[in-house]
Amino acid sequence: MHRSTGRLCRYHNVVAAASSAPSAPDRPGSAPTPEALSRLDELLGPGQVLIPGRDDIIRYDTDVLGRRSPACWVARPNDLEDVRSIVRWAYAERAELVVQGANTGPVLAGVPRAGRHQGIVSMELCRSTIDVDVLNRTVTASAGVDLASLNDALARSGLTLPIDLGANPSVGGMVAANTGGARLIRHGDVRRHVLGLEVVLPDAHATVLPLLRRLRKDNRGPDLKHLFIGSSGTLGIITAAVLAVDPLPRDVATALVAANDGSGVLHFLTLLEARAVEHLSAYELLSRPTLEAISRHLPSGIRWPFEFPGVPDLPPFLILVELSASDSAHGGRQSLEDDLTTLIDQSASRGWVADAWFGRPTTLWPLRHAAINALHQEGPMVAFDLSVPRSQLFETRDQIIALVADRAPHARYADFGHVGDGGLHSVFIWPRELRVERRLREQERLREAMYELIAAADGTFSAEHGLGPENESAFRRYSPEIRHAQAALKALFDPRRILGSVDLS
Amino acid sequence: MHRSTGRLCRYHNVVAAASSAPSAPDRPGSAPTPEALSRLDELLGPGQVLIPGRDDIIRYDTDVLGRRSPACWVARPNDLEDVRSIVRWAYAERAELVVQGANTGPVLAGVPRAGRHQGIVSMELCRSTIDVDVLNRTVTASAGVDLASLNDALARSGLTLPIDLGANPSVGGMVAANTGGARLIRHGDVRRHVLGLEVVLPDAHATVLPLLRRLRKDNRGPDLKHLFIGSSGTLGIITAAVLAVDPLPRDVATALVAANDGSGVLHFLTLLEARAVEHLSAYELLSRPTLEAISRHLPSGIRWPFEFPGVPDLPPFLILVELSASDSAHGGRQSLEDDLTTLIDQSASRGWVADAWFGRPTTLWPLRHAAINALHQEGPMVAFDLSVPRSQLFETRDQIIALVADRAPHARYADFGHVGDGGLHSVFIWPRELRVERRLREQERLREAMYELIAAADGTFSAEHGLGPENESAFRRYSPEIRHAQAALKALFDPRRILGSVDLS
Repeated sequence: MHRSTGRLCRYHNVVAAASSAPSAPDRPGSAPTPEALSRLDELLGPGQVLIPGRDDIIRYDTDVLGRRSPACWVARPNDLEDVRSIVRWAYAERAELVVQGANTGPVLAGVPRAGRHQGIVSMELCRSTIDVDVLNRTVTASAGVDLASLNDALARSGLTLPIDLGANPSVGGMVAANTGGARLIRHGDVRRHVLGLEVVLPDAHATVLPLLRRLRKDNRGPDLKHLFIGSSGTLGIITAAVLAVDPLPRDVATALVAANDGSGVLHFLTLLEARAVEHLSAYELLSRPTLEAISRHLPSGIRWPFEFPGVPDLPPFLILVELSASDSAHGGRQSLEDDLTTLIDQSASRGWVADAWFGRPTTLWPLRHAAINALHQEGPMVAFDLSVPRSQLFETRDQIIALVADRAPHARYADFGHVGDGGLHSVFIWPRELRVERRLREQERLREAMYELIAAADGTFSAEHGLGPENESAFRRYSPEIRHAQAALKALFDPRRILGSVDLS
Repeated sequence: MHRSTGRLCRYHNVVAAASSAPSAPDRPGSAPTPEALSRLDELLGPGQVLIPGRDDIIRYDTDVLGRRSPACWVARPNDLEDVRSIVRWAYAERAELVVQGANTGPVLAGVPRAGRHQGIVSMELCRSTIDVDVLNRTVTASAGVDLASLNDALARSGLTLPIDLGANPSVGGMVAANTGGARLIRHGDVRRHVLGLEVVLPDAHATVLPLLRRLRKDNRGPDLKHLFIGSSGTLGIITAAVLAVDPLPRDVATALVAANDGSGVLHFLTLLEARAVEHLSAYELLSRPTLEAISRHLPSGIRWPFEFPGVPDLPPFLILVELSASDSAHGGRQSLEDDLTTLIDQSASRGWVADAWFGRPTTLWPLRHAAINALHQEGPMVAFDLSVPRSQLFETRDQIIALVADRAPHARYADFGHVGDGGLHSVFIWPRELRVERRLREQERLREAMYELIAAADGTFSAEHGLGPENESAFRRYSPEIRHAQAALKALFDPRRILGSVDLS
């Protein structure tokens, strides 16, 4: 057991007594008074409460895409008891709050809701604990710990949390969004790794649910922790988590494989799974327009992997395939590359794939991770984070492409993403020279049409980014029975509706 | 896509209207009148409702351990609409019901609660659909489909649901209990495989939650399906599920490895995970007393794997280790056996393990699966299904053994189970000749002490069997905050408390 110094966000069994919260006027939606903010300031230590005007809060109320969502206040708890003090204050004052991890999410779930007077509870100081239990193969971490720090600590024991992302989110943020990433096909989403949680409920007592268990299996009635995983900070505040972690891989083989069509992409995948499912750790699509954008905006220090410049005569799809193994038995990477070569050859003989380039992971992954920024540089864009059953992925993609001509005639389409698990990041880019009103009109029409299309394909508009004000309108297209049940849960756990920027009603 | 003929338990979006349920007298706990049972009979087809006295219901109201829990009625729905009719009837009549799958659970969760007038909804006829989607690597199945039939259908596509059990439960029962089994260490519990569910809520309208999705990632607010997984049939009736499935393994290597002590068991495990985590598909303990019982009650047709009779000079622990691979590359089983040999040699040189016997899976697994019946034949027993953090497993086991002398001086102790994931089946056996009252007194004292001990070790009394009347008293020792939240969920989803044999309050 390695235990870092400092305080863990640990729970105390505070037995709920009769309400002791001061009564507050019923003024939902109004901003806290200066007196109320003074009381908040007194509850926490110096520098833990930031007030706009007095303090610079731009890095909290501006999201990763540069969108400003003004906050009435920012509170930075150090530990569980600070979080509970803030919640009791907010409950009494009917002050609304949004919990923020590393502020890396793209759906506005971690910043105040437009038009509401909300504050931000930033968990960035709540990072005292990274407690690795090697024999249990778990780590207990405070909510504010970031993924890179967590993996640095784990690597010292030969372990890793195998969530591969372009960003560096916090533990609490990853759990609240149920993050996916590029290794989901082998290692699953964040939910799969969560064994335990510590959660503060937004009630009068700031009740703590002591779910911080280290058990791989535990079935004693409805498992409450799953309510908070992937719920975008709407039902409770996650202050710590126990995560099951994996041994670090020792060998990795990567290749870019060119596929002729969607059917080839899926059949190659199915063959890889039948013959090497335990090693298949990534199956990532880069479609031709995305690869072209990357070639035009290649980040400095990244080498173009092909012997030719640009993207001349490739088939329409490139797949980044990765096999990884925990041991170097059987010849290690060479052996994994041999396996991959055999499977590519078999697929080529059936016409599923056309060509392949082997390369080191450090050469090929930066290309994949460069996709979103390269597309950003092509012009104003709208991106969708969708997932559909794999078997319908390319049929759905054809329908999406047909939409462009109809609903957004000035847009170009590019996509990439985790097709191995049915995920696709669909991106639409408009020319910079198009008049803004015209572009916004097309974007709005496209958004509506995309949400309809995804729903009709039994898909989701939020595969791995979570629910936020950004995509909330899509949410309203789905089953009223589900929304009704979600709203009932919201009312149960957050009776004064003080928590979160998502409207679950 | 393979689609079997017949009806799927499909949902219909019935928009909840104002309550149309006939008002019923408030008599919770009383048996339905003959008139009420006649109405139920009329709602369903001939032979779908069984009435004690008129029909033989012993196979429904007697559990897998032969315990009788008399039912007032048994209803056997054919499909979703039958389930909804039963629920609407039960809601109106305030008739309590328990949902039963294949009746294989050992905690009395699928039979009526003692002292209550409950009926049984057997899902055995609701098995029309097994719909395999090869490209999506999923199967959609009706709740009453049994695991063996499911895996027969999947095997035709080279796929499997890798839940390894001694029993043959139904899909709905496995989901409701969140079953674990012997391959959890590699393949996870049932929850990990559930992508979608169709659930009927026990409300006036028998509302259907249309959660039957086929997506590997989907995050649009709180994920309701997780409320019903592992909730022992307390919140809703599962009528169909979508399960992610795996390619069938092509090669398997198994060995029995003798370990010197608990520390050796854990260090050997950690080495296996560091070097072969993607292949390690079972790590099962048979302690010496369990192996002795197996040797005395060897099922016919099973060969004793050792060159000597009985269990002479073995170290105290035998581990059944299994490595499996989806391909026969690298020499297949021979190669997996070579890997295992290397890792055993390394562990032996460090004193963690002492000896090893390689054998075919068909030779070694029957020994492991014979454990519980062999112990049953040794005398009256009490068994616990516990799980603790792996790192504390053998410390906890020492404490359990110390309990025997103190609380149950006439009992012998034996154990076995899924130690790779922190699970242990702890079994206490009394001599047949001991006076029954004395045994029952010891059993009661032991049960209390075991539940205290497991709670103190941050463990669970229900690792994989689920919560039922059998172990409900343990449940009351845990956090009041958690039980309060579970009770609130129960009140939300089952306002008239008509569902289940577990008391969530």
